[in-house]
Amino acid sequence: MNTVLIYSGGLDSTCLLYQLRAEGHAVTALGVDYGQRHRRELDSARDICEAVGVPIRIADASSLRPLLAGSALTDDIAVPRGHYTAESMKQTIVPNRNMILLALAIGWAVSLKYDAVAYAAHAGDHTIYPDCRPAFVDAMREAAALCDWHRVEIMTPFLGKTKADIVRLGAALGVPFAKTWSCYNGEAVHCGSCGTCTERREAFALAGVADPTEYADAG
Amino acid sequence: MNTVLIYSGGLDSTCLLYQLRAEGHAVTALGVDYGQRHRRELDSARDICEAVGVPIRIADASSLRPLLAGSALTDDIAVPRGHYTAESMKQTIVPNRNMILLALAIGWAVSLKYDAVAYAAHAGDHTIYPDCRPAFVDAMREAAALCDWHRVEIMTPFLGKTKADIVRLGAALGVPFAKTWSCYNGEAVHCGSCGTCTERREAFALAGVADPTEYADAG
Repeated sequence: MNTVLIYSGGLDSTCLLYQLRAEGHAVTALGVDYGQRHRRELDSARDICEAVGVPIRIADASSLRPLLAGSALTDDIAVPRGHYTAESMKQTIVPNRNMILLALAIGWAVSLKYDAVAYAAHAGDHTIYPDCRPAFVDAMREAAALCDWHRVEIMTPFLGKTKADIVRLGAALGVPFAKTWSCYNGEAVHCGSCGTCTERREAFALAGVADPTEYADAG
Repeated sequence: MNTVLIYSGGLDSTCLLYQLRAEGHAVTALGVDYGQRHRRELDSARDICEAVGVPIRIADASSLRPLLAGSALTDDIAVPRGHYTAESMKQTIVPNRNMILLALAIGWAVSLKYDAVAYAAHAGDHTIYPDCRPAFVDAMREAAALCDWHRVEIMTPFLGKTKADIVRLGAALGVPFAKTWSCYNGEAVHCGSCGTCTERREAFALAGVADPTEYADAG
């Protein structure tokens, strides 16, 4: 299958990249620069794709940033620290991000005449990110099948998995975890204390997999 | 209702602008520059909004153009002339355009805490543009209701109407047709012979409404 992977260079989508390759997909990666405050994760995306020989395209959607106001990921609001809570995590929501990413990836898949778009939404996201819920994905799957005469499938193999499941799977596939980037603060190394660093550390601990990430805050 | 209208400055979306205002909606218009070869229609959009006092924002998505290759509207392929045929009209398709426009408009509506997004897909589009079919709109409606905790409705009141119906409705609402822009060739006046000019002329004729458009090709 020819598959466009929505790819951030983060832990989840890198594990999905490795899984798709292991399953024999011809993968092309799509990174979207939607005006994140730092682009550290897109650098990771480029490095990892280069290492495994997967073509990657970074779509420049940064000019859309003013439209997507109100999120700590794109505005000058402090990034929430410590464990995600419903309130702090909501601040990291880019309004309708997944629909926008899917719409762009599907458009690209249609123009390439590819079969599928894959993205790494997982079970841990459901309670906070409404656009990671299975019912949302089902509606988008239906829309993707109808948006063009060329039919594009949406693949979300991690939808029922926890982040710890994904770490375990990634370890089995030889994912270079240290190269992946999760931290919301775009410093030289992972801060170790923002919501996504906290979640990342916890996933390695729960999975019983050694965490090779260098954290500024040793924790 | 607070409503974001996906607005091109064309005949259909201008009639929808007038209808929404007549129904008492507080309308904010969203124009999207997705790399059209000319921006004449967005100039019309700005002029008409200014005249009726509706705020408009033009989102700059032109940097996404390389991703959406393969259409006569964004690439250097000749614009088809004369009556639309399935083949010539397909050349004017921007892959997944409506999903991308809806995704952006919904994201904006979520950040504004608006109630609805309106767009002017109509019955004449269905057979050629797959993303104007009612089943596609239904799937997007479902996705829009799920993508955020703040629910956004998708309004498509023209979905069952022909372009002639829309012209008749616009005439009753006092739409300044001469200010609207349809032509795919961005010259000083409508060419009168491209697919959308042909369709525009025909709609006025079928509706029995005088066509105030200045055409280069008097026909």
